[in-house]
Amino acid sequence: MDITQIIGLVAGICTSTASIPQIITTVKKKKATDVSPLMFIILLAGNSLWVWYGIEKSDFPIIATNVISVILDLTMLFLRIRYRQKTNH
Amino acid sequence: MDITQIIGLVAGICTSTASIPQIITTVKKKKATDVSPLMFIILLAGNSLWVWYGIEKSDFPIIATNVISVILDLTMLFLRIRYRQKTNH
Repeated sequence: MDITQIIGLVAGICTSTASIPQIITTVKKKKATDVSPLMFIILLAGNSLWVWYGIEKSDFPIIATNVISVILDLTMLFLRIRYRQKTNH
Repeated sequence: MDITQIIGLVAGICTSTASIPQIITTVKKKKATDVSPLMFIILLAGNSLWVWYGIEKSDFPIIATNVISVILDLTMLFLRIRYRQKTNH
């Protein structure tokens, strides 16, 4: 593994795990009315396309980290829908 | 421009512009207490590293779209700090 791959992996770990603090904040507050669901829908589309791009380019850091992102985007979307009812409280 | 580059650009446009709905939501509500600031700090680090990775690999879609992401991450962080005072309202 060369230095470029390491940069890519660290970059990808940051951009993939960035939504973890948001997921924790949401689970703790059981509230996400200030969070834009559209943001996570667009992220889901984008991360899925990055996986495709990574496959086309045989680029391991892109594939690996975007697969994680897709899983986290789906988790956040699920939470946003689950806590939707809290909007009017 | 080949099909792979187009996939990369569309992917990057999605993941870069994903924070625009969040920025609009925040500006409209003048409130972002449910939004995790740590999320945007990690994103900023990750997107900056992706720019570096893109330069190393001479990968145009990665460079272009992550430069946009860095600008938007900084915008969202600024808004999160600006509306911090609203926490106790």
